[in-house]
Amino acid sequence: MSKSLNIAIAGLGTIGGGTFKLLMEQAEILERRTGRAIRLVAVADPDASRLKEAKKNGIRCYADALPMAAEADIDVVVELIGGSDGIAKKLCEAAIANGKHVVSANKALIAHHGTALAHAAEDAGVTFAYEAAVAGGIPIIKSLREGLAGNNIKRVYGILNGTCNFILSAMSDQSREFEDVLKECQQRGYAEADPSFDIDGIDTAHKLAILASVAFGGEVNFDAVHIEGIRHISPMDMQFAAELGYRIKLLGIASIRDDGVEQRVHPCMVPETTAIAHVAGSLNAVVADGDFVDSIVLEGYGAGAGPTSSAVAADIIDIARGLKVPTFGVPAAQLKTITPVPMQRHFGAYYIRLMVVDKPGVFADIAGALKNHAVSMESVLQRTRDPGEAVPVVMTVHKTEEAAMTKALDEMALVEGVVEEPRMIRIESL
Amino acid sequence: MSKSLNIAIAGLGTIGGGTFKLLMEQAEILERRTGRAIRLVAVADPDASRLKEAKKNGIRCYADALPMAAEADIDVVVELIGGSDGIAKKLCEAAIANGKHVVSANKALIAHHGTALAHAAEDAGVTFAYEAAVAGGIPIIKSLREGLAGNNIKRVYGILNGTCNFILSAMSDQSREFEDVLKECQQRGYAEADPSFDIDGIDTAHKLAILASVAFGGEVNFDAVHIEGIRHISPMDMQFAAELGYRIKLLGIASIRDDGVEQRVHPCMVPETTAIAHVAGSLNAVVADGDFVDSIVLEGYGAGAGPTSSAVAADIIDIARGLKVPTFGVPAAQLKTITPVPMQRHFGAYYIRLMVVDKPGVFADIAGALKNHAVSMESVLQRTRDPGEAVPVVMTVHKTEEAAMTKALDEMALVEGVVEEPRMIRIESL
Repeated sequence: MSKSLNIAIAGLGTIGGGTFKLLMEQAEILERRTGRAIRLVAVADPDASRLKEAKKNGIRCYADALPMAAEADIDVVVELIGGSDGIAKKLCEAAIANGKHVVSANKALIAHHGTALAHAAEDAGVTFAYEAAVAGGIPIIKSLREGLAGNNIKRVYGILNGTCNFILSAMSDQSREFEDVLKECQQRGYAEADPSFDIDGIDTAHKLAILASVAFGGEVNFDAVHIEGIRHISPMDMQFAAELGYRIKLLGIASIRDDGVEQRVHPCMVPETTAIAHVAGSLNAVVADGDFVDSIVLEGYGAGAGPTSSAVAADIIDIARGLKVPTFGVPAAQLKTITPVPMQRHFGAYYIRLMVVDKPGVFADIAGALKNHAVSMESVLQRTRDPGEAVPVVMTVHKTEEAAMTKALDEMALVEGVVEEPRMIRIESL
Repeated sequence: MSKSLNIAIAGLGTIGGGTFKLLMEQAEILERRTGRAIRLVAVADPDASRLKEAKKNGIRCYADALPMAAEADIDVVVELIGGSDGIAKKLCEAAIANGKHVVSANKALIAHHGTALAHAAEDAGVTFAYEAAVAGGIPIIKSLREGLAGNNIKRVYGILNGTCNFILSAMSDQSREFEDVLKECQQRGYAEADPSFDIDGIDTAHKLAILASVAFGGEVNFDAVHIEGIRHISPMDMQFAAELGYRIKLLGIASIRDDGVEQRVHPCMVPETTAIAHVAGSLNAVVADGDFVDSIVLEGYGAGAGPTSSAVAADIIDIARGLKVPTFGVPAAQLKTITPVPMQRHFGAYYIRLMVVDKPGVFADIAGALKNHAVSMESVLQRTRDPGEAVPVVMTVHKTEEAAMTKALDEMALVEGVVEEPRMIRIESL
C-alpha cells in the first residue's frame, strides 16, 4: 500500500461542498480503485459557517486558502473558488510553486491563464488538472486527451451551458418568451441574479477555449472566441426553426480550417435529426469529430454539486494512480500558436427573419440586397399578408461568407418596409 | 525523448488493416502526444496477400503470430484475430508470459477469459488493454475505469451491436419485416452470412459482461448473462411501441441490486424521450448511472476499421505514456465474485401482444390469467374486431416479477381464442 494522498479543498460552495461529500462518502471505493488512501486533511473558506462540517470531522480549517497551500502535508490543492484572477489565480500559482498538484473547476481561470499554468505545472513537475471546468460530470477532457488521442480532431462543439439550454428548451417546448423563462430560472435558483455570464455566452466561451486547446494542441486563446448570447432569440424564431426541421441551441464550436481555427459561440439552428438537437433541459453535450473515430457524442450534467465533484474526483484519482498526461495533451512548450479565423470569414448557411410591412417592391429590394452581395437564397416563408401590419418574412440562404451576409443584412435593414432590425441565426451542418 | 515503443499487430483483417493505417498515418501526432516514437515493427497474418503493404513498408511479416510474440524487440502485441479460444487466446497468454503488453479488440476472449488474463497481466507486470472490445470508438472503458471512478456505478446499459440497431431502426422507420432487412444487410456486407452472433444477442452479451466487470469491480461472468435476440420482433410491435410512446432497441443492461447483479440482453421498449431511443442506424451508445455524476451517455460508432482502430490506438498511447490502471479498475485479486440475479427475479414492466379470435369470454380469460398471478394491467389496446379473424390485443402491465409474468403468459397461451404464441417485450424505465 502506497502512502496516502492528502487533499485540501479551497472554497466550500456548491462544488466544494459536493467534493467534500464525495471524498468522505466514497473513501473506501477511492482506496480500492487507487491502491492508496485519499484523505481530506484541510479545507479553506472565508465563510466560517461553511467550515462547521469539516471541523466536526477533525479536518483542519482555514479562512485563507493561501497559507493552507503552503502546508507540508498537502499533496493536492483543489481550487473551487472561481474567478479568472484574484485569489483563485494566486492560490493555483502558489500551490504549484510549492510543489503541490492542483485540481481546478475554474473555467474562467483556465480560459485566461491556462497556458501559463500548464508551463508552471510542468516546470514544477506537478499535475494541473481541470476535468470539472468543462461540461461538469462529462469526462470530455480525458476523452479528448487520451481516449481519442489517436485522432486528428477536426472539430469539437457542444452545448456547454445548462442554464442557456434550459431556457432555450423551455422557450421551444412551451412557446414562452426569453425574459419570462429567465425570470423563472432566477426565482428557482437555476440562474444568477446577474445572468450575463451564462446567457451572453461568456461561460460557454471559456469552456470552448479550453476544449479547442485540448483538441488541437494549441495555446488557450479566449480572446479569439466570437461570442453571442441568447437574449435576442424569440419564440417566433423557435417556431420557424421547427417548421424548417431545426432546433435552436447555443453552441460553442471550434474547428480547424486550412487557414487557422474558428472558435465561436452563438445560437445555432441544428437539424432535428442530430443527437445534439435532442439534448434537453439543463443537460450538456459535447461532440468531437476525429479522422478515425468519426463523431463521438458525450452527454450528461454540466453543473451541480454531484456531477462536478465526480469530475474533480476523477482528477484526484488520476493523481493518486500516478497517471500523468501533459496539461493540454502535449507538453506546454509544444503548444502551437494557432491563427484565429475572424468571424467575418466564417462560411456557412443562415436563417434570416425580417418584419415587413407589405408595400409594392419590398420583396424585390430584399432580394436585391442578397443579390448585391452574391448571397443565394435557399427558401423563403411568408405566411400572412396583412396590409399595414408587419409580418415575418423568413429566408434561408445557401452557404456564404459571413462578411457578405453581414453586408446584405445591413442593406436589408435599410429597405423601406422592413420595420425591425433583421434577425439572423446561423444554420450548422453537423 | 524516451525510447521508441515497438508494436506488433496480429491479424490484418478490417480492424488490423485500420490499425496499420492509423499507426502509419498518425505517427507524428502519436509521437507528439506521447513523447516517444510508436513504431510498427511486425505484423502477422496467415493470408500472405494481407502482408504485402507491410512488406513494402519494411515491416517484418509473419504467417504465424506466436513466434512474433516471442521476439525480443516487441513491446506491445495487438491481438486482432478474434475468437474466444484458439490462437487468439494462446497468443495473448504467450505475449503476457513473454513480458509484452497486450492490446486486444476481442470481446469474446475477454468475456470468457478476462479475469484470468487480468491476473496473468498483473503477475507479469504488463498491461492488458481492450478499449476496442466494447462499443468500438467510444471511450467507455476509460470513462468507467477513470473518468467516473469517483462514483458507485449502479447501472450500465447500452446499444452495443450496430447490426441489430441498424436492423431495428430500418424496421421501425420503413415498416419492414426483420427477415427482409437482414437479407439487405447481408447483401451489403453489414451482417455476416451466419448472423447469429449479432442478432441473437451473443455479441452484445460479450460486451455487457465486460462492461459489468469494469462498472462493478466484479469478475467477468458471461455465463450469468440472460440473452435474447431480435428475431421475434415484428413491424406490428414496432407500430404499437410507437403508439405507446416507445421505441424498440436491443439493449444490454447490467445493474446492481441488493441481492446481486442483473445482466441481461433483450429487446426493450425505451421511452421516446430518452437519448437512447434516438440512437439511429448502426450507432452504438452506452449509458452509465453513477451516484454522483447522475447519467452519462456516450454515443458513436461501435464497429468499422476507423472507430475501432481509434480505440486500439488509445490503448497503445496509454502504454506509451506509462499510464497504468488495473485491467478491470481494481487489482484482479480484489475483483468480487458477484451473485447473479436470475432473470425470473427481474422486476419490471411488460408489453404483451396476443393474437386473438374474438369469442365470448376470451378477454375475461386473458384478464384472469393476469389476475391469477397478481399481475396488474396498466393499459390495453384493441383496435379492430373482425369476427373470425385474429386481431391483436396489446397490453402493458405494471412492474412485476418476471416469474409471475412468465406464468401469466403461459396461461394466456392456453386460452381458447388466443391463436399465436403471446409476444412479450420488456419495458425499461431509463
